[in-house]
Amino acid sequence: MPHPQSTAGPVTVFVCMTCRHADDAAEAQPRAGARLAATLTSLEGVEVREVECLANCKRGPSVAMARPGGWSYVFGNLAPTDGAAVMEGAQLLARSADGLMPWRGRPEPLKRGLIARIPPLPGASA
Amino acid sequence: MPHPQSTAGPVTVFVCMTCRHADDAAEAQPRAGARLAATLTSLEGVEVREVECLANCKRGPSVAMARPGGWSYVFGNLAPTDGAAVMEGAQLLARSADGLMPWRGRPEPLKRGLIARIPPLPGASA
Repeated sequence: MPHPQSTAGPVTVFVCMTCRHADDAAEAQPRAGARLAATLTSLEGVEVREVECLANCKRGPSVAMARPGGWSYVFGNLAPTDGAAVMEGAQLLARSADGLMPWRGRPEPLKRGLIARIPPLPGASA
Repeated sequence: MPHPQSTAGPVTVFVCMTCRHADDAAEAQPRAGARLAATLTSLEGVEVREVECLANCKRGPSVAMARPGGWSYVFGNLAPTDGAAVMEGAQLLARSADGLMPWRGRPEPLKRGLIARIPPLPGASA
């Protein structure tokens, strides 16, 4: 179905490179966050940025995503194999008419892994 | 000490009105989040907005804060009496030259209650 808000983004996905997974050995390399990051590829309307810390260390691997004029999201307890779910969620956010990521249709890892969300700043435009 | 970046803000503090505290009875009214919100008053460079949910429900009471071109923060496990600490942290963020809330001098509830932080969007200006 064509979506009139398909260009509402762009969304930026911030992926933490230093997150460990609870099941990983302390010195396992590459870290779970870096393994997740390696599966994320920028696509139309979604830019991926690797970052060092989202301060969600106890519940990693972690990503955050945000867009101008929209809500910002933090997700945790992800698996290194959740890259496709992350990008699918980012596209949902990019295409959202109200700046919220819809719950319906949201990939499961972004439902059970929701850590927090932040409203857009007052006066921000999409 | 005069601070040349004292007008770098403005910061918006989002306070969740529906958060419960772990020690509260299920039906206690007003809720812990609303009790915290009642102690927050907008001041120069810091605007307070009451919101319904920051999706940090298991670790409430919760606040988030953000500013144009700066990092966004989520704090949880706060007490209804932490209002002064919240506003002090918001002022630190408003005055920050690099858009980060400094760790040094940050009130203790915003150290132990840090849930996550999100970088500014690419190209965003303070």
